[in-house]
Amino acid sequence: MFRLYYAGGTCALATHIALEEAGAPYEAVAVDFRVQAQRSPEYLAINPKGRVPALVTENGTLTETPALLCFVAQRFPEAGLAPLADPFALAQVQEFNLYLCATVHVAHAHGRRGARWADDAAAIAAMQRKVAANMTACFEPIEHKVLKGPWVMGERYTICDPYLFTIGSWLEGDGVDTTKLPRVIEHRRRMLARPAVQRAVAAEGTQIP
Amino acid sequence: MFRLYYAGGTCALATHIALEEAGAPYEAVAVDFRVQAQRSPEYLAINPKGRVPALVTENGTLTETPALLCFVAQRFPEAGLAPLADPFALAQVQEFNLYLCATVHVAHAHGRRGARWADDAAAIAAMQRKVAANMTACFEPIEHKVLKGPWVMGERYTICDPYLFTIGSWLEGDGVDTTKLPRVIEHRRRMLARPAVQRAVAAEGTQIP
Repeated sequence: MFRLYYAGGTCALATHIALEEAGAPYEAVAVDFRVQAQRSPEYLAINPKGRVPALVTENGTLTETPALLCFVAQRFPEAGLAPLADPFALAQVQEFNLYLCATVHVAHAHGRRGARWADDAAAIAAMQRKVAANMTACFEPIEHKVLKGPWVMGERYTICDPYLFTIGSWLEGDGVDTTKLPRVIEHRRRMLARPAVQRAVAAEGTQIP
Repeated sequence: MFRLYYAGGTCALATHIALEEAGAPYEAVAVDFRVQAQRSPEYLAINPKGRVPALVTENGTLTETPALLCFVAQRFPEAGLAPLADPFALAQVQEFNLYLCATVHVAHAHGRRGARWADDAAAIAAMQRKVAANMTACFEPIEHKVLKGPWVMGERYTICDPYLFTIGSWLEGDGVDTTKLPRVIEHRRRMLARPAVQRAVAAEGTQIP
């Protein structure tokens, strides 16, 4: 039985959905960011990074969303969540997830976590002002080139889909005009029709725009 | 025959080393950042992101360092660069590489690429002032907990090692006091003793502190 530590509205939703899709045995444990529970000694003993998600397995604890998604796909191969045996196709899956992680999520984080990268309030406010434009720019290639449809990689649903769905659910809150991203929004609707997605979203109580 | 597009002093060195370690057939093509060649129409046709590394394969072009490193390991399994058949062990490898990519590289990038995240000069300068402290904080858990030795994952050399070596080569330039990171520096020396590392470093003409 795995334990997934998550907080509502965070990227942990991607792993939460993947676990549901895989039919993995797990329980989800909420970490209450409103009381900074991610900084508590109890949680830091589980994940010294003080972030979510963290997945406690029988072998130890794992973090970092793209690593967790690949782990779920490889650990539950019958779910077919990634082209595990094809190095190029798997690299394409990872390339997409890496872009979401290291470029798109990072662009988003400058709206709320600017204190990570500068100490003064004016600089943090300057970062916040650029978030909508950066998130718009990040999603343009997804909308116009990368998202093949119906799923990110085409006909096959993969671990790219819950991650795109999760980070895409932040667009409206980041001030992005999603009427310019119709294919991304169609993908969101398609995701919301999947029972596994519905279960994970409901369990978290996460609001999807 | 692959083609690796790289620039000296960038994270492309990690993939360059991995290709050498794997004995992969490839040629390395320099992208001259001094003349902004990464923004040229020719290069954007290869990699629309305008960054390095990009690896052109017989099936298409791949980007994002952790994805490329995993691809090299999976494509040349005889080199033994990753525990491909063990989902948990592979996830640990990816977790480490994701941390380097999405936390450490991002912390470093605020010293030179702050214009990605804010428009005004004062904010960019504020980001630069925090780089040394952030990179120091990023490397503390690597020094004290994660780096098992002699290699990142212990006895086995993996795709974590060229990536740590590469990002670790930026520490002095970022103003980090590396006398506090003796295990990271020992790892650098151990890497520099490997012929594959020597070949990649020499081919790029990259200066390692």
